[in-house]
Amino acid sequence: MPHVFSFEVDACRGRSRAGVLTTPHGAVKTPAFMPVATQGAVKLLTPDDLEDTGTSIVAANAFHLYLRPGTDVVARVGGLHQFMSWPRSILTDSGGFQIHSLAPLREVDDDGVTFRSPVDGRTLRLTPELATRAQEDLGADLIMAFDYCTSYPTSREEAEKAVALTTAWAARCRAAHTSKTQRLLGIVQGAVFKDLRERSAAELVGMDFFGYAVGGLSVGEDTEQTAEYAAFTTSLLPQNKIRYLMGIGRPEDIAWAVAAGVDLFDCVVPTREGRHGTALTGQGRLNVRLSPQTSDERPLEEGCGCYTCRRFSRAYLRHLFLAGEHLAGRLVSVHNLHYLQKFVAGLRAKIVGENN
Amino acid sequence: MPHVFSFEVDACRGRSRAGVLTTPHGAVKTPAFMPVATQGAVKLLTPDDLEDTGTSIVAANAFHLYLRPGTDVVARVGGLHQFMSWPRSILTDSGGFQIHSLAPLREVDDDGVTFRSPVDGRTLRLTPELATRAQEDLGADLIMAFDYCTSYPTSREEAEKAVALTTAWAARCRAAHTSKTQRLLGIVQGAVFKDLRERSAAELVGMDFFGYAVGGLSVGEDTEQTAEYAAFTTSLLPQNKIRYLMGIGRPEDIAWAVAAGVDLFDCVVPTREGRHGTALTGQGRLNVRLSPQTSDERPLEEGCGCYTCRRFSRAYLRHLFLAGEHLAGRLVSVHNLHYLQKFVAGLRAKIVGENN
Repeated sequence: MPHVFSFEVDACRGRSRAGVLTTPHGAVKTPAFMPVATQGAVKLLTPDDLEDTGTSIVAANAFHLYLRPGTDVVARVGGLHQFMSWPRSILTDSGGFQIHSLAPLREVDDDGVTFRSPVDGRTLRLTPELATRAQEDLGADLIMAFDYCTSYPTSREEAEKAVALTTAWAARCRAAHTSKTQRLLGIVQGAVFKDLRERSAAELVGMDFFGYAVGGLSVGEDTEQTAEYAAFTTSLLPQNKIRYLMGIGRPEDIAWAVAAGVDLFDCVVPTREGRHGTALTGQGRLNVRLSPQTSDERPLEEGCGCYTCRRFSRAYLRHLFLAGEHLAGRLVSVHNLHYLQKFVAGLRAKIVGENN
Repeated sequence: MPHVFSFEVDACRGRSRAGVLTTPHGAVKTPAFMPVATQGAVKLLTPDDLEDTGTSIVAANAFHLYLRPGTDVVARVGGLHQFMSWPRSILTDSGGFQIHSLAPLREVDDDGVTFRSPVDGRTLRLTPELATRAQEDLGADLIMAFDYCTSYPTSREEAEKAVALTTAWAARCRAAHTSKTQRLLGIVQGAVFKDLRERSAAELVGMDFFGYAVGGLSVGEDTEQTAEYAAFTTSLLPQNKIRYLMGIGRPEDIAWAVAAGVDLFDCVVPTREGRHGTALTGQGRLNVRLSPQTSDERPLEEGCGCYTCRRFSRAYLRHLFLAGEHLAGRLVSVHNLHYLQKFVAGLRAKIVGENN
């Protein structure tokens, strides 16, 4: 039982897919949005808060947890599920993207990456083997190959290097990955060069991963390009494997991503916007700080069933933001995640033909 | 029914008292600790969090809410209970203490106080009538007379002035207070001059308030003096009226305050300490940030039933603090309030002779 992993596509509509991911920590209906618990916590929220929003999987970051408190520390206290007290599924990113964004404080060689810790300035090194080991220490259900990510814009030469290193490192991650209670996903690179994305996808699919991520996007290109290259990349991936588009989480982006056949997304935006006073609603974004809310007794969204909307007015939330009370960010984060999970569930219902 | 107010002393042990305060928003077993919701929110916590800690009354601050968002705004959206979504009892302080602490940005005359708003620099004025009106707009169950508070040390002359103004202003608050759904408490001043405290208490008791607060303490004197003058002041107050010692909330202080016959306390310390990484435990204070906690799987306190202790290890909480995650402050605030409410309930059980 604890080692059961599966991914089944139950229904399709155009290229959209509705499926179920099963991990030792339960079932995840896809498409699924993963709130981001970068440092082992979705900012301001408890596991109970997350479950109340309809969340069944979160994305944590092995790189950040490797720096602090140390993946060995997390392993010693029983792994990341136990540490966070989160009983459902977890995915960890390997750190490829974070190290990419550390430039110029990092040096890449064929074997791995040497970098300066942004926490304490120590010189550290990650290799495919070490990144895999760190993720095995954490014990997330889904773990990611250690990839080499590109910026936007990037030269063809740099994109070719990214594909070559990512393929070589993916093979080493695959060899290093021995845990039976986790599944490894490959990450397709290739920037905005379609032939390179084809090459990257073909090489990774040849290694038969549990699933595949679309990497190297949401790094500065415009949304049309993100959508175009994400859709192109998913067209290269096997139908029966789970697909994860990294760094996507605005409702408008999730809509095209699901239409492109993506199953998993993660993004800090809904919680970050919540902390900064922007609420997601069916009528668009609401700036909770603005004066029209001063004595507005309505909830953030009429009819919303989240804790925040059941209990608090816009007037109160506006006051909390202006008074600098972090409770405001907590409450709007709850609403935004609830909104987004319901939005994704609505997309899923359309795919399977349920009335929503 | 909605106008039922009472305070009954059920049991005494020495000078300690166990009673029940009844307001239109329910029963409060005394002695009772009131977490502080200065700006209409106990920092980081929801009403549900507070109820889970065993809290049945909170203390908010009319002065802060007068400055922002405006007590008129709160009135317009249905009053403070509705605004905060807190269905149980509320006490508001009048602002006397806050204005006192604004010096030198304030000028006191016999009629009231003119001061510079710390929020936006506006010149504002509060009088006993306006402070009462502001508290009636908020609609808390218990409201406080507008007093003149002294610092420590203070001259006899200044303390005499404080007593005289506080008495005169209390009479004006009493006359201005017309709401039938609230009860007004007087505040005894007199600094560390016993004859002045006697005079202040006698004058206020002569006006027959619903209850009496011990003011002008916790303003810089040492704890022995606070305890001495608090006990002296309570000895001057009628047995059948509720007594409130302002600004007290450390377990060690609550112990002597209860022994001195105090029924209500409020203090920001348990939540402030929680946010800063200090947990209250039966073995004393625990600095959650310290390295012995790095891989300590124990909860903050063994056997504690709070959400934080049921779900999270010291190792996790330490990590959250070092990582700058405000969830840490939220979780330790929950624990500290739970600890303190249980501590106070234990003192009460001893007074009524229950086995705890």
